[in-house]
Amino acid sequence: MTHPLPDVPDLTDDRLADEAGGLMDNKTKPVGSLGAMEALALQVAGILGSTMPRPADPQMVVFAGDHGLAARGVSAYPSEVTRQMVHNFLDGGAAVSVLARQHDIALTIVDCGVASEIPPLPGLVVARVGAGTADAAEAPAMTPAQCAESLANGASVVRGLPGNSLLLGEMGIGNTSSASLLMSRLTGIDIADCTGAGTGLTNEGIRRKATILRQVLDQHADATAPLAALAALGGFEIAAMVGAILEAAAQRRVIVVDGFVTTAAVLVAAKLRPHVVQRCIFAHRSGEAGHAALLEHLGAHPLLDFGMRLGEGSGAATAWPLIVSACAILRDMASFESAGVSGRDAGA
Amino acid sequence: MTHPLPDVPDLTDDRLADEAGGLMDNKTKPVGSLGAMEALALQVAGILGSTMPRPADPQMVVFAGDHGLAARGVSAYPSEVTRQMVHNFLDGGAAVSVLARQHDIALTIVDCGVASEIPPLPGLVVARVGAGTADAAEAPAMTPAQCAESLANGASVVRGLPGNSLLLGEMGIGNTSSASLLMSRLTGIDIADCTGAGTGLTNEGIRRKATILRQVLDQHADATAPLAALAALGGFEIAAMVGAILEAAAQRRVIVVDGFVTTAAVLVAAKLRPHVVQRCIFAHRSGEAGHAALLEHLGAHPLLDFGMRLGEGSGAATAWPLIVSACAILRDMASFESAGVSGRDAGA
Repeated sequence: MTHPLPDVPDLTDDRLADEAGGLMDNKTKPVGSLGAMEALALQVAGILGSTMPRPADPQMVVFAGDHGLAARGVSAYPSEVTRQMVHNFLDGGAAVSVLARQHDIALTIVDCGVASEIPPLPGLVVARVGAGTADAAEAPAMTPAQCAESLANGASVVRGLPGNSLLLGEMGIGNTSSASLLMSRLTGIDIADCTGAGTGLTNEGIRRKATILRQVLDQHADATAPLAALAALGGFEIAAMVGAILEAAAQRRVIVVDGFVTTAAVLVAAKLRPHVVQRCIFAHRSGEAGHAALLEHLGAHPLLDFGMRLGEGSGAATAWPLIVSACAILRDMASFESAGVSGRDAGA
Repeated sequence: MTHPLPDVPDLTDDRLADEAGGLMDNKTKPVGSLGAMEALALQVAGILGSTMPRPADPQMVVFAGDHGLAARGVSAYPSEVTRQMVHNFLDGGAAVSVLARQHDIALTIVDCGVASEIPPLPGLVVARVGAGTADAAEAPAMTPAQCAESLANGASVVRGLPGNSLLLGEMGIGNTSSASLLMSRLTGIDIADCTGAGTGLTNEGIRRKATILRQVLDQHADATAPLAALAALGGFEIAAMVGAILEAAAQRRVIVVDGFVTTAAVLVAAKLRPHVVQRCIFAHRSGEAGHAALLEHLGAHPLLDFGMRLGEGSGAATAWPLIVSACAILRDMASFESAGVSGRDAGA
């Protein structure tokens, strides 16, 4: 099975950018005085192709999957927690559930391949590719066919959702290991600088994790192309996210990126379709080691710097109202002319 | 006329802090993994005296006033803009109007002494102490009686408002000059390091502004006590804000501080009643030179770093949903026990 990757064309539109920038500069405020909020509004205008951008019907999708590598002790929590947290998401008790409720963000959980099956539940999309990936220390985490199926599943989930904005979340014990592996392989940064505490390893635990991950990279030294790396080192939920990102980008949805693991998925997508990054709003710089360097590699300027490191989409959901605010400013603020406000003194 | 300053007692409550911290640590997430959001939730719990903090009926108050010093060219805009912007606030076209609408924040504008009178309008509180302050280069900006009246007016406005949260905003052409003067006088930092572009001066304009402000400080060398400095160097809207801050602090309201000018008002209030700062959430580090050092002087950790420098309360309103989120996390997230989620592996 292969999954055809969609085109993601360059969004650059000088006419739209000039028009939106002109509108912003003529709002009743000194030019540039809303700082990063202005750049954010102009980015969303570019993504949605409108000088009156309006984020509509935002969709948080949490991609969940388990990792064979987790058995090697790369996480502070057992794999069983992935399934337990899926229930917690659906029951409304997780951080992302609370935040999505606050902001009227629809919440969908996708079982991309949790170790133990989850019965059908409202809000759960079942798109299982296996009962957790293979142990990447022994074999590729996914076969090429499993990877392609995951990509297709992610795209399919996005096609089934309304709205113009996708917020990315993920859950998978062991998946910061996959993210570190993909980061190191696709950026060339040493694995030690890509490896962090995940759910809360001690410093000794982080060193052990990095040693294991270095062996995994050696084991799959030939998996250098983006899709080959994704199959060998990734996870079902990460591959599904890559598919979702590419589909959302092709549809010109606003893509709100969460933390380290979702950014690693964006990295894979960007290696396949570089213009994906134009559609991405990076919600925050997480506390997970490696995230700052990964953001820098992507040229990303995250909105928040709160030291959050939970995943789930919790950072994306936290930052969502800032995106709504930026668009409201561009759409709804008065101009100097419409409000009858004087401009700058000529000599100042 | 004198205005009795309210008591603002120490909020430290180890029992409440332990209880709230324990609840936070047992939420379904690794300990500390929500970073600054956790500290924010615990701060609000402390302010509101509850482990289930719920910000209610938030009130944005924009204090407006004019400055005699503005005639000396310390701003890029003419004083007339203060009155024009008050109309823009009330008409719903200003940044703070748009943001307050988005977040269901009630918006009150207080005419503390705009140069030209504004007719009664819905949403406008008239508490005029004069038609703009005196030129501080020649005389104290306010008499002691005017300063006391302004303080009393600010307190009175807060007493008349419902809810448990006050967001601070201000408007006044020339008021970054007052803020710089108060900062320099009350922190001892050289006026050059307290002076910035305000609404958008050129570098040459900033140098001119700092030269003028240095002369003003010399002129009022004896105004070293907080209230004396406030009268000599402040403004009607800044003094009203100081009164509002002290009253809100005494009432244990959450005080959301905006940018440079509102932080200068907090500085004055904190010199009078140091525990005020316990009740303050600093929304952002603004792009105005001096704000970073002022925040540092107060030991403040702002939420956002967007380079915003508009004032009006625009930064406070932008950050508001983050405060609501933090509280929702503490109140509404499930615990490991209630959600049936496994804890850490013993050995990790």
